[in-house]
Amino acid sequence: MATNKRGRQSFILPQPPVITHWASIAGKKESEGPLAHAFDHCCRDTFFGQKTWEQGEKRMQQMALETLMEKAKLQKEDIDLVYSGDLLNQCIGSSFTLRNTGIPHLGLYGACSTMAESLLLSALTVGGGFAQRTVAMTSSHFASSERQYRFPLGYGGQRTPTAQWTVTGSGAVLVASSGKGPRITSGTIGTVTDLGVKDANNMGAAMAPAALATIKAHFLDLKRSEADYDRIVTGDLGQVGKEALLALARQEGLNLGGKLIDCGCLVFDREKQDVHAGGSGCGCSAIVLCGELLGKLYSGAWKRILFCGTGALLSPTSTQQGLPIPGVCHGIVIEGGSD
Amino acid sequence: MATNKRGRQSFILPQPPVITHWASIAGKKESEGPLAHAFDHCCRDTFFGQKTWEQGEKRMQQMALETLMEKAKLQKEDIDLVYSGDLLNQCIGSSFTLRNTGIPHLGLYGACSTMAESLLLSALTVGGGFAQRTVAMTSSHFASSERQYRFPLGYGGQRTPTAQWTVTGSGAVLVASSGKGPRITSGTIGTVTDLGVKDANNMGAAMAPAALATIKAHFLDLKRSEADYDRIVTGDLGQVGKEALLALARQEGLNLGGKLIDCGCLVFDREKQDVHAGGSGCGCSAIVLCGELLGKLYSGAWKRILFCGTGALLSPTSTQQGLPIPGVCHGIVIEGGSD
Repeated sequence: MATNKRGRQSFILPQPPVITHWASIAGKKESEGPLAHAFDHCCRDTFFGQKTWEQGEKRMQQMALETLMEKAKLQKEDIDLVYSGDLLNQCIGSSFTLRNTGIPHLGLYGACSTMAESLLLSALTVGGGFAQRTVAMTSSHFASSERQYRFPLGYGGQRTPTAQWTVTGSGAVLVASSGKGPRITSGTIGTVTDLGVKDANNMGAAMAPAALATIKAHFLDLKRSEADYDRIVTGDLGQVGKEALLALARQEGLNLGGKLIDCGCLVFDREKQDVHAGGSGCGCSAIVLCGELLGKLYSGAWKRILFCGTGALLSPTSTQQGLPIPGVCHGIVIEGGSD
Repeated sequence: MATNKRGRQSFILPQPPVITHWASIAGKKESEGPLAHAFDHCCRDTFFGQKTWEQGEKRMQQMALETLMEKAKLQKEDIDLVYSGDLLNQCIGSSFTLRNTGIPHLGLYGACSTMAESLLLSALTVGGGFAQRTVAMTSSHFASSERQYRFPLGYGGQRTPTAQWTVTGSGAVLVASSGKGPRITSGTIGTVTDLGVKDANNMGAAMAPAALATIKAHFLDLKRSEADYDRIVTGDLGQVGKEALLALARQEGLNLGGKLIDCGCLVFDREKQDVHAGGSGCGCSAIVLCGELLGKLYSGAWKRILFCGTGALLSPTSTQQGLPIPGVCHGIVIEGGSD
């Protein structure tokens, strides 16, 4: 059997799947941020017309999927498979979105790395000839996350300076075996990395070592360096985590400074929007990818990026039991152009 | 690009990945059941030497992975990727098992369908040449599930006759590009199916329509019938769900009666073990597969089975918000022999 595996953690795609379309749905605060121009829909209703925030999150994912199908002029029957997951317990945002659609679905849990994980699995599935068109999708919602992971919003708890603001948003990407658009050419699957950070209000610091581990593995496996990329994009380290990653990388002789950008730092204006360390959540890297990033790749402004979804694999239970926060990061290489 | 896709939901594996080894860890009640002879380890300590049930569940998965590596004479470095997930919020059983092992990990959420989902993705990954050896793994724990999904055990709540008993157990399967053992030859990815069942104490009924939908899609896509299989094995419908599936199938002219078995009915002795409708949980189909089922396939007693992992995609939040229980079922064809 021909191997597409490279090194310990990476793989290449000899026939690179194409990202032909993408869609993003953004909440109110995100729509007031610096990337609003690139979202498909900016919504001011936190409930998205539903009775609960959890159902609102589901509606957001439905809107992302519907918008994607409209843009691609596809029907449900044309989609072979949806890979999706979210932060809600038992991923109900995703499973209720897909219910009774008739679209085959495989559910994922990668915390905030889910956009990269779903893209990575889409690339393997389409690249292996097992599907022609898959959708990679995820979402997060500030209000449903806050009450699940931290405190009910009505409690009015104060946030620490290292805390991040969960993005309300959903992104969906169509990965196809042929067509025009940016292509997925390789990927690196992350390992669960834990240096002992226990502060659930500083997830950036908990995820930074995982991001470094994946970027290092990617460079080693594919014999590349930061010079091979226009940008290295992390998912949601925020300002604290981004600085931690830069410092950790420097200790190992890697200078990511000129290339590293973070979706959590890009999605909000930290000066004006009172989000402390920046954005987070599955929806953070999803709406930044399905707008700004894929736009720049499509236009040719960027030739090649390494998109690194970062996830903090904690739960309220593990935190209450005094355990540290394991991090994970999956990397996917997307190359530009609309051909 | 050559297509391995068949019909709407299915795929074939031209070079079928091999299940070379498997391992199962069972809890106390499971070890007193009729399949005890086939488990690798029978444990009487509900905490598995840990301080909490959640950590006990993690320890159980670690034991499954360690036992698998011992049986296969492999080191961590020899495993390219672990696909795993569990029922705990944010899948902490799986992520804490993998943390700092250095083994690449992709997390899944498919509720009790996770054993089939992880096998299916392992088959796609190895079959596509993206990995040489992957592990498909999952777990569930009666005590950690009860307090998360229903009531604290100390509350002593009475169980309804349709309720199932979450299996305490973990199973791990090694899927390799070459070697001796049963082979994965095709698969069918399920759709999220919901006929409006709202009783969280009757998950068998909620999952039966999803099982039927996947079995029907499998037969249609691959032009097969129940006659092509020695057994059609559902994950954890239990007695109520199994009877519902048989009745639903009959309505559509399918007679599964002679072929259908259910891991939830096999794992316990319902007469003697007071488990009401039978076993459930990710660990249910996992330990039955990684013992009895793979044993019979390895020995040649069975030539071909359709293994159907069934999952109820509810959460306590969705139940409290009055929503029905979406079901999902993924099917995977395993063919026997040790060559």
